[in-house]
Parts: sequence; structure tokens; C-alpha cells
Amino acid sequence: MQKLIKPLIQKNDSKIILVVLDGVGGLPINGKTELEAANTPNLDALARESACGLHVPVAYGITPGSGPGHLGIFGYDPIECQIGRGILEALGLGLEVRKTDVAVRCNYATIKDGIIVDRRAGRIPTEQSKKLTEKLQSELSRIDEAELIFAPGMEHRFAVLLRFPEPLEPDATMIPDTDPQKEGLAPLYPASLSKNAEKVSRIAEKLINMAHEILKDEEKANYILTRGFSGMPHIPTFQEAFGLKSLAIATYPMYRGLAKLVGMDTPAIEGSVEDEIKFLKERYNDYDFFFLHVKKIDSYGEDGNFEGKAARIEEFDKLLPQILELKPDVLIMTGDHSTPALMKGHSWHPVPVLLKSPYVLGGLCSAFSERECTKGELGIFPAVNLIPLALANSLRLKKFGA
Amino acid sequence: MQKLIKPLIQKNDSKIILVVLDGVGGLPINGKTELEAANTPNLDALARESACGLHVPVAYGITPGSGPGHLGIFGYDPIECQIGRGILEALGLGLEVRKTDVAVRCNYATIKDGIIVDRRAGRIPTEQSKKLTEKLQSELSRIDEAELIFAPGMEHRFAVLLRFPEPLEPDATMIPDTDPQKEGLAPLYPASLSKNAEKVSRIAEKLINMAHEILKDEEKANYILTRGFSGMPHIPTFQEAFGLKSLAIATYPMYRGLAKLVGMDTPAIEGSVEDEIKFLKERYNDYDFFFLHVKKIDSYGEDGNFEGKAARIEEFDKLLPQILELKPDVLIMTGDHSTPALMKGHSWHPVPVLLKSPYVLGGLCSAFSERECTKGELGIFPAVNLIPLALANSLRLKKFGA
Repeated sequence: MQKLIKPLIQKNDSKIILVVLDGVGGLPINGKTELEAANTPNLDALARESACGLHVPVAYGITPGSGPGHLGIFGYDPIECQIGRGILEALGLGLEVRKTDVAVRCNYATIKDGIIVDRRAGRIPTEQSKKLTEKLQSELSRIDEAELIFAPGMEHRFAVLLRFPEPLEPDATMIPDTDPQKEGLAPLYPASLSKNAEKVSRIAEKLINMAHEILKDEEKANYILTRGFSGMPHIPTFQEAFGLKSLAIATYPMYRGLAKLVGMDTPAIEGSVEDEIKFLKERYNDYDFFFLHVKKIDSYGEDGNFEGKAARIEEFDKLLPQILELKPDVLIMTGDHSTPALMKGHSWHPVPVLLKSPYVLGGLCSAFSERECTKGELGIFPAVNLIPLALANSLRLKKFGA
Repeated sequence: MQKLIKPLIQKNDSKIILVVLDGVGGLPINGKTELEAANTPNLDALARESACGLHVPVAYGITPGSGPGHLGIFGYDPIECQIGRGILEALGLGLEVRKTDVAVRCNYATIKDGIIVDRRAGRIPTEQSKKLTEKLQSELSRIDEAELIFAPGMEHRFAVLLRFPEPLEPDATMIPDTDPQKEGLAPLYPASLSKNAEKVSRIAEKLINMAHEILKDEEKANYILTRGFSGMPHIPTFQEAFGLKSLAIATYPMYRGLAKLVGMDTPAIEGSVEDEIKFLKERYNDYDFFFLHVKKIDSYGEDGNFEGKAARIEEFDKLLPQILELKPDVLIMTGDHSTPALMKGHSWHPVPVLLKSPYVLGGLCSAFSERECTKGELGIFPAVNLIPLALANSLRLKKFGA
């Protein structure tokens, strides 16, 4: 798709705003979905004059994680562009990941006489884990040419970045997990599975041994197991692929990280959705494309809190006029995936989409909801088509063929 | 798609029932399709609370045979997984085809002085053809290492299986058709078009010559022409691809054969649809997935009998509550293709689909019909997506990406 798009791109002064209502899609409880139950006069009015539909994040029946969910709506095929588990973990823990980094997921574990007796070090408390990770950071800031950046996680989990002076080859992270997946076995060796992986393998071995030396007097967390060695995906930036200078507005590090994966500007900001919109207004003259991320809707869905999710949607609805005031050439509202409160988690269901521009039919949907969007002019379509639609509606794509 | 699905599969105790109403899709005569004309209160009630849509069996405009039609709804890309004509013919004639078999379609023909003077042996009566085929079977039960299994067909047609002791290589059946396609020409030689095909070529030559020797005194059917040499497709089984222990419930050998192609259990059963449902209940504890095939709807469509087709749909509707009593986690009702009575044959039209699970929107379609299903939440989608949807709705798929 990007190959088709690229030669057609033309620049202009148009502004595109993509609002991602994280996990907005839902399922009915007592006959209504969260979007249907919420009182959303502004979203509904917008839906009536917009092109609506539903996007399929990855494929029919596939429940996306946040990574593939966002990649798709950013215009990257989430099946082709798979992001390594280490990278996703590091992003999730709030690390700023660079092109020269190798990311690794780690567990504290208990080893005795060379045998793993507890793969999770008794699920040590998060507070204790945090202290140990800080200790590792202070004593292990560098191995060979790699700078080390640690991030504590929940319980026995943490992540580490190996920051190299230069980007590595795509196969330089082909290192097997050292977690034997079962207690009573020795840890596996972080071998290099490709010629280019020898450097990372050597550093991984040192990291594991040096960490063991530092942790050896701990009762439980006296060893580390490593998994998911991965580098940044080798994909074109959003600017290269779509010709858009883009700004990510997200308060959660994970989503800034995903935007950074595709090269968007990702200033660290804090605050409420209203603060995000304020920031959008401040920077509105400086960019072509704005990704504004609204997190809390998803969080309440994950908790199975139907009313809470609906209330967060209503809160956003009240703020929507502030975005409309900017009169963007193209405004898209959607989610990265569905998170029905009924399911207490992400799901495979297609996600409502609304696209407002001067070049839509409109008049097909009476509200912004899963069921109303099935009646819309965009149909049910793969998420990767969203950015081409945004480009077309901002008149940024030339004719294909004469 | 199977490659994407496989690492996500998780097991649980859920039950999935796929009811295939063969050829159920239709076209209007006097304004109503067969499904619209039929009185189907149970199907309609189910549609109101289900996810509905239409599946495209192969591609827009492509009319599928029963083979590709079923492969698609079994989750196999019907364009990638093409089944050899010999295999399809053998299945259609009710032969039980094994992994070690090579199947061949044959014609009786008339040869004179080495020239084919009638490619169809004057379309000899089926009864006579049957006797000749029995004669071939009794005199030709084995050639070299291959056991021979003949199946009589209509008029001049029959099929033969070459049953080897072990599976052959994928290219072992690269043998050209010996039918010259025109009278007045010599039959072609069953040459080996690949190194691995030499064994089958040698046996094919002997088969043709020995059959000619046996038939030489027949007035018309004194020779055989061979076409469509093929082995079983090299595809993963349904269990391997989707992690489902599966049972096919079908009274027609052709459909058991298609299910057997993908490794479903296919006990030979007889009787009515009610008998099929009885069998489903008896075996309900033993499997994860049930393919229940309802044939007669298609047969009346093929005959151009609109009322008959509608009546068969009504008959099924009366039995539906017996299936609902089982309370499967996921129930899918669809067809393998459309067979509009108007067209007296298969057609390319998308086929209505209904999927019932706890995780659907529902409420979008007032009945189970072609037109109502266009309003559903599943949209119009490729048939291969049906099994991933079944897996998702039975919570048998893990999240893709973190």
C-alpha cells in the first residue's frame, strides 16, 4: 500500500487530526454498547455529516495488542511490520527507544547450583524489584560498546536497553530466550543465531553473568532470565511514507513510543485530555498531522467497568468542540482496537471510524457507534487504509495513472 | 492467514458448530429469494441476535465448485489450495481417498487403428459403463506396487485411484491428460513431466494398455482416456491449522471426502438432516468442532425448483431448535456457495452468514436472508475469515502483539 501511495504524494498546507480513542469499540450489555449508552451529542452530530465505517485492525478474528493496533492506523501493515517483544516491553515501561537500541525483556529468577528453581523469583514485590533494578543500573551502566538503560516493571519483570553507538543490522538481535520455560532446568545460553548477532550475544552473556555477580546474595532474585531480544523495526518513517510532518500528543509513554517507532515527534507531556487539546492548539501551526491519544477509555474497558468507560467517552465528547474549533481539513476519530467492558480486554471486533472532510457523502449514520457505523460509506475495511483516506481527503494524493 | 493464526491458538473446552446449508444463497423470483420466500421463524430470530454478513467464497465474480466452496469455509485459501480434478472426481463419485492415492478421471472412448474416433464412446448408457468398470476392477486390481480402485460414473465417465503403499512426492502426479481433446487424433502418451512422476507414468501406461486389452472386443468403449492425475493436496490438517478436533456430519460421500481432505473425522452416516442432528448430539462430547452438511437445499436449486428449495430451507428451520438446545459456544450457519433456482446452478454471489456467540453486537438484521445480511456487522468478507472468526468468538485466539 505504501509503495502505491508514495509516488502519488503531493504537499499542501492542509491539517489532519487523528484522534485515537483507545479501545473505544465495545459490545452490548443490556442491549447497548458503551458508545451507545454514552450521551455524546457532539460525536453524534459529527457522525451525521462524516464518512463513517469500521476498521479491522489486523484481520478478521485477530485481537491486536496496542503495538499492531497503532501501527495499522498509522498506515503500516501490522502483519508485515511486527515489533519485537523486547521493544514493546521497553515502550510499555516508558523507555525512550532509539534506532540504535536493542531491547530485552527480563525476569528476576532464583538459581541454585546452576538450575533455575523459580523462574519468577517468587514474584518478588514490585518495590523490591525496583530497588534491585536501580542497583543493576548503578553498577552496570555500560558493557563493551553498549550503554545500558534499565526500566523496572511489575513484580519480577524489568526491561533493559543495550544502546549502541550505531544502528545494528536487522539480524543482529537473533538471540534465543535464555528462559528455559520450566523450573528444574539450567538457563539457556544467549547464543548468536546469525553472524551479525555475535556482538549482542557477547554482551548478553556478560550482562547475565555480571548481574548474577551483583545479585548473588539475594535470597530469591539472584539471577536474570532474558527474552525477546529485538531492535527497532526497519520501516520508513511516517514522513518518508506519507510526506507528513507529524506530532504525537500522548501522555502515556507506551503510545509516544509507538509514535516514535514511525518517527513522529513525541514530546513528553502530562495532564488530562483537555491539556492534550491545549497542546494541540499551541503546536497547530508547526505540523501537518496530529495524532492525539485518549487513553482512559481503554483502561475502564480493561477493568470491565462499562459505566466508567461510557463516562470517559462522555467526557471526551464535551471536549470535542475545542478540536472542531481548529477546523482541520481532515478529522478522524477512531480507536486502535475494541476493548469491550464485557470482555475486560482487547478484542477482535472492528472499530468505529468517523472521517470528516469537505469530500464525504455523510447522512448515513445517526450516531457514532459500532452499529451505526456499519451503515456508513466507508464499510468495514483494513485499518491500513485509514491514512491513505486521510491523505486523499486532504487532497494530498495525485491521480493514479493518467 | 493460517500462519498468522497458528501461534495465537489456545485450547479450551468450547464447542463450535458450523452448519453448511449447501447452496443456500439465491436470487429473487417475483421479488423474493428462496430464503426470503421461505417461512423461517427460527433462523430469523437467530439472525436478529447474531453477527451477520455475507462471505465471498473465492473472489468477486467467481463461481465455486463444491471443492473450493468448502475449502474456503474450512479456512483454506481456495486459490492457493487447489484440489486436483482427479481427486475431486473421485470424491464426487464417493471414493474414500487416502494420502497415498493418485486419482485419475477417465472416459471410455472408441479407438480405431490407433486413432480416437469417439472421445466419449458414444456416451454409452450409465448401466453399461458401470458393468465395464466392474469388469476392469475385477481384472485389474493391482499394477506394480499400486492397488487400483475404480468408481463408475455417469455415461462414459469413471474414476480410478492408484493406491500406493506410501505417500508420493507433490510432483509425482505431473502427467499430462491423454485425451487429445479432438476426435481424429491419437491419444497422448502419459509421459512423466517430472523425475518423480516416472512411477505413476509407467503405471498409467500399463493401465491404459491393459484396459484396452480387456475392452478390445467392445463395440464402442474399447479404450480409456485419462485426465486430471492428482494426489491429495499437501496442506495442514484442520487440527494442525486451527487446533480443533473436528467431526464431519454429512450423508453425501463428496462432502465427507472434502472434510477428509483436511483431516476431519468422517464417519459414513446415512439418513435425513434430523438423523444428522441426532448423530451430532450423540458425538457432542467427543469433539471441539462440528461440520454439519445439509445437502438437499442445493439439489433443488440446481434443478431450478424455487419452491422446492424454499421448502427444504423451511424443513431445516423446523429442526434448528434441536441444534440450539446444545448451546454451542459458537454457531455458524452459512452455505458453501449460492445456488439460485433462477440460475439452476452454482453462482458467484456472496453467501449469507450468521454467527452466534456471546460476543456479537446483533440487532442489525431482521431475518436470515441475502438482503438482510448486507446490513450485518460482519460485512462482505472472504470465506477464509470464517474459521478465524469462529476461533475468536470461542476465545481460542490469544492477542497478537503486546
